[in-house]
Amino acid sequence: MTTVSLSLDEIYDLAKKTLLANGCDEDNANILSDTIMRAERDGSLSHGLFRLPAYVSALKSKKVNGKARPQIQTIAPSIIKVLGNNAVAPMVLSVGLPAVIDLAKKTGVAVLAITNSHHMAALWPETEAIAEAGLVGIACTSYKPAVAPAGAIKPLYGTNPISFAWPRPGKTPVVYDMATAFMAMGEVQVAKREGRKVPLGTGLNKAGKETTDPGEIADGGVLLPFGGYKGSSIAMMVELLAGALIGESFSYETAANDNNDGGPPKGGEFILAISPEKIAGPGWDKHADEFFKKMSSMEGVRLPGERRHKNRLDKGPRKINEELINKIKSLS
Amino acid sequence: MTTVSLSLDEIYDLAKKTLLANGCDEDNANILSDTIMRAERDGSLSHGLFRLPAYVSALKSKKVNGKARPQIQTIAPSIIKVLGNNAVAPMVLSVGLPAVIDLAKKTGVAVLAITNSHHMAALWPETEAIAEAGLVGIACTSYKPAVAPAGAIKPLYGTNPISFAWPRPGKTPVVYDMATAFMAMGEVQVAKREGRKVPLGTGLNKAGKETTDPGEIADGGVLLPFGGYKGSSIAMMVELLAGALIGESFSYETAANDNNDGGPPKGGEFILAISPEKIAGPGWDKHADEFFKKMSSMEGVRLPGERRHKNRLDKGPRKINEELINKIKSLS
Repeated sequence: MTTVSLSLDEIYDLAKKTLLANGCDEDNANILSDTIMRAERDGSLSHGLFRLPAYVSALKSKKVNGKARPQIQTIAPSIIKVLGNNAVAPMVLSVGLPAVIDLAKKTGVAVLAITNSHHMAALWPETEAIAEAGLVGIACTSYKPAVAPAGAIKPLYGTNPISFAWPRPGKTPVVYDMATAFMAMGEVQVAKREGRKVPLGTGLNKAGKETTDPGEIADGGVLLPFGGYKGSSIAMMVELLAGALIGESFSYETAANDNNDGGPPKGGEFILAISPEKIAGPGWDKHADEFFKKMSSMEGVRLPGERRHKNRLDKGPRKINEELINKIKSLS
Repeated sequence: MTTVSLSLDEIYDLAKKTLLANGCDEDNANILSDTIMRAERDGSLSHGLFRLPAYVSALKSKKVNGKARPQIQTIAPSIIKVLGNNAVAPMVLSVGLPAVIDLAKKTGVAVLAITNSHHMAALWPETEAIAEAGLVGIACTSYKPAVAPAGAIKPLYGTNPISFAWPRPGKTPVVYDMATAFMAMGEVQVAKREGRKVPLGTGLNKAGKETTDPGEIADGGVLLPFGGYKGSSIAMMVELLAGALIGESFSYETAANDNNDGGPPKGGEFILAISPEKIAGPGWDKHADEFFKKMSSMEGVRLPGERRHKNRLDKGPRKINEELINKIKSLS
């Protein structure tokens, strides 16, 4: 793979220029470019520039409104709703996150319910933002059906990621952000291209049989949840929290409503912020630190999020796939 | 196994008599007996009469106070704390659940933080109670270290169960209640006794190697989380929510503080109640019902909780292990 070296500013500028050329206004372009730059910075490549062509498709088809202004409403004493008005999720989050953080600091716990927005980024930017404000953050969202419930052979769930972030004042939060699928379809396709097998449990073939052949999964097969019945229950919970609970779509509805332009479909996100300071009171952070010390002193164990935060310390340029850069440049 | 047939009332009465004879007052005995009877009724045998001798041990050693009155405090606008005062968890829940349900109906979301209580029952009674009030219920608790974080070979996490219940007005809730361990140690011991192998992924032997021999896991080995790194992250989240977030013990602290009388150690529980009516508004239940219809129409898929709720419809007597009955009778 031939790569091109781009500074973080150049990554941001390339994203912004492309978005401005395709219907985003200044605010939307700034916020989405920042999300893309931060994904590249942290080594979360599948959520960085790689996503830009799909965002452009959705802007071109007018599925996503690049000039949208999300509307925020406090609909109950501890519930904030943001109507996305077809904005990309980072724009919606820029409006909702400060509000849910403020509210949770007052009431102890608050929900941010996002509807009618278009999410295709990672979830850690939102849970980390909550944790950086001293709160516990949990977020989840569904997508289009790609994962069979345990026991079934047809898809119902999206890859339904869930993210959790624990605040560590003065340190980076402990954060995970994981698909509830055993493996993302993108990774299955990479394995297929590279001629590698995938672990048993990754997915089923067209006939509904377990297979280690990624090609059989990618071509008419289906992904499986991580962890069998238990992971499947977590995936179901995500469908419900990001669907009926907040008045948004289940994955199968999202698919039915989408124009299949390749961009992020319309959907919702469930976000929870909880205050350890309000619940446990002072000392909660030291208490948790002892646990993390114990955990990270165990051989073979790494605190979730550490690798990304280490990448973040590198302020230097990033190597980006040249083919991707050329594709993006052709879009503006 | 020789069994004795007991009606649900007889199960309740046997539990109550035993608890009264061992230091419980009327209120504590009533509430704990009800929890035990309901576990037997629903076929959740490992949380029924089977637990009674351990409760008696903890009453005898005075670790558990059978006359305790938990204290409830609203410590923030959406946070309720119950100081258990060394009561068994069902007693604490009897005080806390109605309050957290009322609060979540007003504010949209509320946390019930339980400290200084003794939990050894299933978690579905609390999440189901929340769901029966029309709210989404989530609960989790930690225990003593028995599970190695993914990558490690020594225990840090408890079997750390998590329960989720979705309300279905007019129907039984959709509920799961699962250990974040691949398999509970009790099941591993049963497999050992019966000479069965356990699946790879259940646990490690003394040397830290994967094994299918339950004896090697039970004797100086360690359990593993379900679902590898992803399940391990869920288990970590449970440690944090039921530990530092609510000002209670991590599993390793629980073990250090316990008198090892076999009864439930002192610990906490994290409970969340969320109102779909407040967030999504009217129609949320029909929306979710369409999802459940779709899900349960898939071959091989069962809605979580169905089997227990089916057991519940049977109001007849239950067959109880005679040896267990005799053991319990000897305790009063």
